[in-house]
Amino acid sequence: MWQLYHFPLCPFSRKVRLALSEKGVAYELKRENPWDASDNFYALNPAGRTPVLHDSERNRTLVDSQAICEYLEETVDKTPLILGTALARAEIRRLVALFDESFFHDVTGPLMHEKMKKRIVLRAAPDSGVLRSAMRLAHEHLDYIDWLIDNHRWLAGAQMSLADFAAAAQISVADYLGGIDWTGHDTAHSWYRVIKSRPSFRSLLTDKMEGIPPASHYADVNA
Amino acid sequence: MWQLYHFPLCPFSRKVRLALSEKGVAYELKRENPWDASDNFYALNPAGRTPVLHDSERNRTLVDSQAICEYLEETVDKTPLILGTALARAEIRRLVALFDESFFHDVTGPLMHEKMKKRIVLRAAPDSGVLRSAMRLAHEHLDYIDWLIDNHRWLAGAQMSLADFAAAAQISVADYLGGIDWTGHDTAHSWYRVIKSRPSFRSLLTDKMEGIPPASHYADVNA
Ligand SMILES: N[C@@H](CCC(=O)N[C@@H](CS)C(=O)NCC(=O)O)C(=O)O
Ligand SMILES: N[C@@H](CCC(=O)N[C@@H](CS)C(=O)NCC(=O)O)C(=O)O
Repeated sequence: MWQLYHFPLCPFSRKVRLALSEKGVAYELKRENPWDASDNFYALNPAGRTPVLHDSERNRTLVDSQAICEYLEETVDKTPLILGTALARAEIRRLVALFDESFFHDVTGPLMHEKMKKRIVLRAAPDSGVLRSAMRLAHEHLDYIDWLIDNHRWLAGAQMSLADFAAAAQISVADYLGGIDWTGHDTAHSWYRVIKSRPSFRSLLTDKMEGIPPASHYADVNA
Repeated sequence: MWQLYHFPLCPFSRKVRLALSEKGVAYELKRENPWDASDNFYALNPAGRTPVLHDSERNRTLVDSQAICEYLEETVDKTPLILGTALARAEIRRLVALFDESFFHDVTGPLMHEKMKKRIVLRAAPDSGVLRSAMRLAHEHLDYIDWLIDNHRWLAGAQMSLADFAAAAQISVADYLGGIDWTGHDTAHSWYRVIKSRPSFRSLLTDKMEGIPPASHYADVNA
């Protein structure tokens, strides 16, 4: 069976968890904190980053959330997530990279640093200037989601794709940490509510990071 | 015809240029500085980043170097670069992400900031502490390349792949900026010399960034 090395607030691990569930692939979670990683974990991934998908029986190790998702796409037929023509697939990958890189860089990464890493590793107070800037940039990204969803039903087009799950994975971590304000983003908000109520999302919403309680509305699928 | 929006020292554009050449796809270069981007460029890529591959006749726009390389892989049979079994392909993508993200974060990005952006945009002196740290981390990455090449002929296995070109693209920019010291890395160095002497590399070695002369040995394929 696959084991996914992750921690509850790693957005890239969440993307993989969503893809695994949507595709009906069984897996178990193995907890790993990259800031305090075991030798065993470094042996699996010398870069010391989560997620890593490992199958000890068949000696398979997959590293990097996008490499993992591409592997799942190539090996599991159920629920294609990188779908359509080559051009449509490129658009899905563009959006996945936008959320994995820009949204993470602008919003999720700073929130995780200020509200998670400073609390449990660095034992320092969050910097309110950094938090304000992350929340301002979150609005710009939500504007872009509004615009995409005004043009078609899902982020990358008429069909649900990995772009939706990559975006929702980032947003869910930012939301857990109190960094998402939906005011003025009704369109993005209704798209997120639909994703959030999928069965694949359930285990993300019940997962907690010890010492860091989620924002009050976080697990409410109607909020 | 495809047009590639790039600037000479963008390592992600270099990865795409290598893939286009290896696959024999004709294209022309369009110069774009992301720190001073035109409205036309933002219309193509709202994230304002290079590379963008655009075909105005057929109205196709591709954004993100990895999305572009996956598209080329799916549409052009010549010279497969993401090749082999699903597991082998995952290993190629793991290494591409390692160089695109970690090598860029540790080495190429800081060198570009200190030696390029500070010179031509910020008009400030480079920070020698940052440069030293980038060069130290470059040694760690070259150690890892030594280790990979000790185990098989190319980075991801027995065959040349996109992993080799992603790595060489990053290294070529770091080398242009004087950040690569091959001392103690004979194995990695001979691998790089082989890549560097491929016809696809030629246009990268003659390209210059105005105001920033390359390190003296940069374009010498025997150095
Ligand atoms: N591109 C990678 C990013 C992985 C990543 O940045 N993981 C973070 C946790 S969310 C990590 O392990 N950071 C620790 C580190 O970089 O040392 C992926 O998609 O898997
Ligand atoms: N993952 C992207 C990275 C692109 C990227 O970071 N491009 C840099 C130039 S090397 C850029 O445009 N930076 C400007 C910015 O981020 O505003 C890719 O592979 O295309």
